[in-house]
Amino acid sequence: MTVTLEANYLDIQRSLVDQALDRFLPTTDAYPPSIHQAMRYSVTAGGKRLRGILCLETGRLFSGDEECLLRLASALEMIHTYSLIHDDLPALDNDDLRRGRPTCHRTFGEATAILAGDALLTLAFETLAAPGPPGDDLKLRVVRELARDIGTRHGMIAGQVVDLEAAKHGADAALVEFIDSAKTGALIRASVRSGAVYAGAPEDDITRVTAYGGKIGLAFQIVDDLLDVLGSREKMGKSVHKDGQQHKATYPGLHGIEKSRAAAARLVEEACEALAPYGSRAERLREMAHYLIARNT
Amino acid sequence: MTVTLEANYLDIQRSLVDQALDRFLPTTDAYPPSIHQAMRYSVTAGGKRLRGILCLETGRLFSGDEECLLRLASALEMIHTYSLIHDDLPALDNDDLRRGRPTCHRTFGEATAILAGDALLTLAFETLAAPGPPGDDLKLRVVRELARDIGTRHGMIAGQVVDLEAAKHGADAALVEFIDSAKTGALIRASVRSGAVYAGAPEDDITRVTAYGGKIGLAFQIVDDLLDVLGSREKMGKSVHKDGQQHKATYPGLHGIEKSRAAAARLVEEACEALAPYGSRAERLREMAHYLIARNT
Repeated sequence: MTVTLEANYLDIQRSLVDQALDRFLPTTDAYPPSIHQAMRYSVTAGGKRLRGILCLETGRLFSGDEECLLRLASALEMIHTYSLIHDDLPALDNDDLRRGRPTCHRTFGEATAILAGDALLTLAFETLAAPGPPGDDLKLRVVRELARDIGTRHGMIAGQVVDLEAAKHGADAALVEFIDSAKTGALIRASVRSGAVYAGAPEDDITRVTAYGGKIGLAFQIVDDLLDVLGSREKMGKSVHKDGQQHKATYPGLHGIEKSRAAAARLVEEACEALAPYGSRAERLREMAHYLIARNT
Repeated sequence: MTVTLEANYLDIQRSLVDQALDRFLPTTDAYPPSIHQAMRYSVTAGGKRLRGILCLETGRLFSGDEECLLRLASALEMIHTYSLIHDDLPALDNDDLRRGRPTCHRTFGEATAILAGDALLTLAFETLAAPGPPGDDLKLRVVRELARDIGTRHGMIAGQVVDLEAAKHGADAALVEFIDSAKTGALIRASVRSGAVYAGAPEDDITRVTAYGGKIGLAFQIVDDLLDVLGSREKMGKSVHKDGQQHKATYPGLHGIEKSRAAAARLVEEACEALAPYGSRAERLREMAHYLIARNT
């Protein structure tokens, strides 16, 4: 597989998202400092900002305002971080490491971690409702659609719930696809879609990039589960081989490694096909799609 | 103290809010059912809907649309319930009883309780961004202000954080006022304020009712702490005398029972004075203020 992203392209984009996040997050000396330290600790723990970058690139495809898109990208990364903090808690995945560092509750205690997650989710919506462009109708649409995409009906929380239950009761192929699509796929799809909405893209285009986002979101989770099987603790910066221990229902667990690789590759091809009408203007999004599944697999 | 609310006034208003909540909450058989059961279990656990009713009454004072106000009231009660579910968790207040019933995590397990709280917060914002009146600008303003009021800078989460820390390190009078005002006061103030904003009230009026809301919010928490000292487990439907055991920093703990009663009564009088320009049209809000502190104290 050819991944043609220039070496520093992702670094530059990540840095843009990081700078925007730095503007929207309270400083660590803001009162009460402990919660703001916990929020920043987890947000700045070395994430790749893939959701933010996907949002930026999709918005740029439709000539969206860069400043608006960076605000949206920041909100998406806050939501992603909230979900990781809560997912890592002892009552859920009980993870001690995340991106090579102790998880939020290991560093700040469970109470602060729960509240830091709550606070990032809340701040994301405050950020999305900030004054300024784009139009109020577009901002409200993104609040509404994003809340649905991270909610309990086909959204991120639905994926987490079904994932936890499948660890106890097992899952068939349809259920694993639901989990992958909802738990991880929904926020990735929403990142792409909301970028297009913020940029004022026509409905046909929003539908088209949403299809792209849905495919790469699903591929991303399959690759994540593959990395859990194949990866090393060092490479991943988090506990690996955990899904097997916890009897998690995963695509590789159900279909095996080779079939999973093929499925992820097929999803990426389909995602890129959805972008055909945009020709070379969508090259970055195509490269991002290939990059997502090329991570060490 | 004279409380002149007709016996069934609050019942009727609560029933209106309950019916609205029933419309906005997913049914318990919606997939995945466990999370929707947990959400409804906690939302329908017999709350008095004081925040929702305050929002309704303030909105009515400025001739707000009843349907819009009921949607807003529902979102406020979802947020209130999310905060109770997370506050009751073992890592925070570790409460087994809430409104006379086992708390969410005692009934559904800790993982589901954490996610049910997350889900109610998320659904509240989805509900606030639903299509229809009032204007987009008013809806976005409420999303923005409410997110701030339940956030980490002077908002509800700030109050929870400082409350937890004060239990370890103690608190002086200024800190106790910060905790009471932020932990409980902020959402009550926001309920009143957002009702006025939704109804399209002029800025002067919004400022005036916000002052009322801030006063009764603070009074409410002082009374809550008084009930904890004076109340019985049966009357309260939750564990009492807990604050003392947990060395919580409270107004009665710092100033004693009589001074606390006097402070709450003074706050209610000041709150009612803020409503003077509205004459008899604000009678319900005055009655609500007196009702809040008449609860068994």
